Amino acid sequence: MLSNFTYDELQVGQTGEYQKTLTEREIILFAAASGDTNPMHMDEEYAKTTPFGSRIAHGIWTASLISAAVANVIPGPGSIYLGQTLKFSRPVKIGDTITIKLEILEKSDKRKRVIIQCTGSNQEGKQIISGVAEVQAPTEKLNLEIPTLPDIRISDS
Amino acid sequence: MLSNFTYDELQVGQTGEYQKTLTEREIILFAAASGDTNPMHMDEEYAKTTPFGSRIAHGIWTASLISAAVANVIPGPGSIYLGQTLKFSRPVKIGDTITIKLEILEKSDKRKRVIIQCTGSNQEGKQIISGVAEVQAPTEKLNLEIPTLPDIRISDS
Repeated sequence: MLSNFTYDELQVGQTGEYQKTLTEREIILFAAASGDTNPMHMDEEYAKTTPFGSRIAHGIWTASLISAAVANVIPGPGSIYLGQTLKFSRPVKIGDTITIKLEILEKSDKRKRVIIQCTGSNQEGKQIISGVAEVQAPTEKLNLEIPTLPDIRISDS
Repeated sequence: MLSNFTYDELQVGQTGEYQKTLTEREIILFAAASGDTNPMHMDEEYAKTTPFGSRIAHGIWTASLISAAVANVIPGPGSIYLGQTLKFSRPVKIGDTITIKLEILEKSDKRKRVIIQCTGSNQEGKQIISGVAEVQAPTEKLNLEIPTLPDIRISDS
């Protein structure tokens, strides 16, 4: 089940986490969803010639993990995403496990908005992304079933 | 072919565009890539009960179109994405066609960085996302083949 924290329940300093590992599958699905098939993400031979030395995730893939944490962990369902700042500090490579940490920085009673500090680190504890989210928090308590994704199969040609 | 504008070629005021239509397929692929299967995106019955009235795209999906424009249109390949601000102003629904417009706002010679104004509008010309990207522009001219995505099949069950 997916549950949320309402605006009234949220406290400054409250934290939440979300974790995901990058595999080739995420890169392919993200490229298809966004239309961004830049060879830096798709072509290992080309990527070897770049400063990164191997294929890297789309920077915004890592931002999508922040968004997933906001939408599903804290505040969770019913949140309305108003804004986000992002700073990309290190590349993410296949096999990296990214941990997103969110912390409520500020509450603004008038419009039920929260400011959330967002940081993402890899399995070595090195920061790869950071930023601040602005979110209109839910006012109603929700407990929802997590939808099941359809089967997705990837095959060469 | 995918070609780029080097830092020296880029001019303040230069623009570029990228367009993509949201179908259910993009929503599913984005949900799978990010792990964000929030019912607001996945479940039409639930979405009808929200202020949006029907399923909406993940906000960061729209941001991924900005990133696609930076990586593939202007400056294009060889760009290194340093930061992004995002303001989400309207929801994006299935069938909406989003046009991303980029405009070079500033050049910073010392570190070959550019500041890019980013706006995304729907088919009615209404702004749905805006922000500013900070990018390290390529110094080397590139002409790359666009990688082909593998076949991706989505099926229920």
